[in-house]
Amino acid sequence: MTAPTIPLAGRAKDLVGSMIDSSTSLLAAQRHDIVRFAMGSPADEAVPSDEFRQIAGEILDSSSFTYGATEGEPRLLGLLVDYLAGTADPASEDRLVITTGGMQGLDLACKLFVDPGDLVIVESPTYTNGSATALSYGAQLLEVPTDENGMDVDLLGDLVARTRQTPKAIYTIPTFQNPSGVTMSLERRKALLEMAHHWGAVIIDDDPYGLLRFTGEDVPTFRTLSPDDPLLFSVRTFSKILAPGWRVGWVDADPSLRQLLINGKQAMDTCTNVPNQHIVAEYISRGGLDEHLASLRVLYRERKDAMIAAVAKHLPGVASVTDPEGGFFCWMTLENEYADVDTRELFEIALAEGVAFIPGPALSPGGRFHNALRLCFASSTPERIDIGMQRLARSLETLTRGRP
Amino acid sequence: MTAPTIPLAGRAKDLVGSMIDSSTSLLAAQRHDIVRFAMGSPADEAVPSDEFRQIAGEILDSSSFTYGATEGEPRLLGLLVDYLAGTADPASEDRLVITTGGMQGLDLACKLFVDPGDLVIVESPTYTNGSATALSYGAQLLEVPTDENGMDVDLLGDLVARTRQTPKAIYTIPTFQNPSGVTMSLERRKALLEMAHHWGAVIIDDDPYGLLRFTGEDVPTFRTLSPDDPLLFSVRTFSKILAPGWRVGWVDADPSLRQLLINGKQAMDTCTNVPNQHIVAEYISRGGLDEHLASLRVLYRERKDAMIAAVAKHLPGVASVTDPEGGFFCWMTLENEYADVDTRELFEIALAEGVAFIPGPALSPGGRFHNALRLCFASSTPERIDIGMQRLARSLETLTRGRP
Repeated sequence: MTAPTIPLAGRAKDLVGSMIDSSTSLLAAQRHDIVRFAMGSPADEAVPSDEFRQIAGEILDSSSFTYGATEGEPRLLGLLVDYLAGTADPASEDRLVITTGGMQGLDLACKLFVDPGDLVIVESPTYTNGSATALSYGAQLLEVPTDENGMDVDLLGDLVARTRQTPKAIYTIPTFQNPSGVTMSLERRKALLEMAHHWGAVIIDDDPYGLLRFTGEDVPTFRTLSPDDPLLFSVRTFSKILAPGWRVGWVDADPSLRQLLINGKQAMDTCTNVPNQHIVAEYISRGGLDEHLASLRVLYRERKDAMIAAVAKHLPGVASVTDPEGGFFCWMTLENEYADVDTRELFEIALAEGVAFIPGPALSPGGRFHNALRLCFASSTPERIDIGMQRLARSLETLTRGRP
Repeated sequence: MTAPTIPLAGRAKDLVGSMIDSSTSLLAAQRHDIVRFAMGSPADEAVPSDEFRQIAGEILDSSSFTYGATEGEPRLLGLLVDYLAGTADPASEDRLVITTGGMQGLDLACKLFVDPGDLVIVESPTYTNGSATALSYGAQLLEVPTDENGMDVDLLGDLVARTRQTPKAIYTIPTFQNPSGVTMSLERRKALLEMAHHWGAVIIDDDPYGLLRFTGEDVPTFRTLSPDDPLLFSVRTFSKILAPGWRVGWVDADPSLRQLLINGKQAMDTCTNVPNQHIVAEYISRGGLDEHLASLRVLYRERKDAMIAAVAKHLPGVASVTDPEGGFFCWMTLENEYADVDTRELFEIALAEGVAFIPGPALSPGGRFHNALRLCFASSTPERIDIGMQRLARSLETLTRGRP
């Protein structure tokens, strides 16, 4: 008797893995001496673990262990509204649904907006777990190049025209983009809004890092530029500003979508885990979040500077690197005689040398950017960043040694 | 200027709400004196909240707050394999993926198996959040009647033939079914396996209550009857045996599906929240789970008995009720002169009287069972169960008073 064939859905072929946050890179990162440029995790020392543990030991009670409301714990929602009032994205409670991390916000967006065959615009490079979610709903992805001002909106009209489709959604990480670190300019934000309205397309505005600007001036958010715009769907998370392990984030969307979001989320995970919502709420209520963010900005600026300096020191003439004003990532492009290096090959050698990163092709649905890589500066001290860059230089040398 | 139309996906119309675990019933249940027959929540006193809080205050550390492996925390997976070895469903680690509650297991199953238009068999009545997930992937649902031996598999061939489709998946809660409380007989399990193989359909075996049998003999699980069967997809959770607030469950599936499950889950929520996985693992490692389950069986048997007794006392000749051998739920059907009562109308009156339940039509995709209701006996003490049933009787009286 032969084993029966498992009747997979057509979309199973579109459930693509990603090197980001995957078990492979995680296991690599767990090796003690590896310099962790791969994962987009906050530094261990940037997470107030002791305070979190203390709060957990103090406040968890039976109300933390039962089902919560699908839209989120009322206290957390209330505190979030209060907190957001002091940011560039104020929101009323009827716009908010707590999600199981920012990732679930993207899953919900695609569940609500993406039919099989729909055209979805993504930045190139992009956050592959985000584009993978769109693919899992059958999206046709259109990659649009980015430069130092973010998605190149000037190219968008022509690129879209060639597809002979009208975009259904535009997936963007406008601020300190993952993976490139760049920020979309004000002009481009305005132009993108205009095009979204022209097409009737939703802008999925994924912004996990916006509160982590360590230099330069804030660029107005889409929400500020177009208040109460039903075509704006904002995905936010505590992952980068508090800790990713919580899996607590939120979406901010037109109130007319709220019941659909609740229905969709019920069919995903019933509600976001309750103890962590209670701990996050208590942390916020104690008033330390602003001070915490201020300390993160100092820490991450220092680390970004260390990374730029380490590139200049160990890879002169070998690579160019973006110089972000916030967030977690630099994007490195190998150049000159290294321009034909495949960073997927480099990855294996680098792991053996003791440094992890994400190869460029893993950050493009079409596998572009063979000679680029994503480097997270947030997780490592300046000293470790220097060591990591030295190891990266050695890996490159190993890979290219003996070449003609 | 008129507001732009939001370009919803076609499936948005299939994102149906449910009265189960919804904010409506939650809010109702929070009213202090309401007898909580609605939600399928463990009793507060059945949750070792103090121990959970203590563990949290002791063991959470920086490793709890960063990203975890998508397939689950290694320690929890190891402890789970050890624990399952002593149950009816032993599993090796290559079969397991930790999920964000059992609900995400159902979401993953539909993501992997259900194409738009696919025929998915569900029990009637069924767990509506489960059937809603299938709908959200475009499934055509076929409701199959259940009786005291579970899904009526004898009817299945004819019902399927009439659809002129081959089923892609069979969604069943075989043991202490939600909402009916009944358990599928051994003969029917064998017959269902045979039909699944005939059709090449996956059995999505959702079993949150199997470890909560308080009387009678275990019926062999599908996994026992057909070991290593690639068409079996088992959805399990800690929600009913520990606490639903954790949102920690697991799926047990053919090892060939594991990478797809990991890819699919990455695009849903990256990983299940890490602190709760650590707390659950620590709780299991301290060895108290078996004793805890034993105490739950005593508690829930007493409550089930109290509910059966309260029905006999307060609703004689008015309603028949199932007498489950485990789990959380009795299913009540109004009869005789009450057979035409609509339990959705009764619901509003009952809330005002101070008792909550789930009306039958909310537990059937086709809105069947107008004169039935789901009663959760797990959340209330015997005394409160008696009071609740009295209130239910009074609500019925109010609703039908002055009828001809």
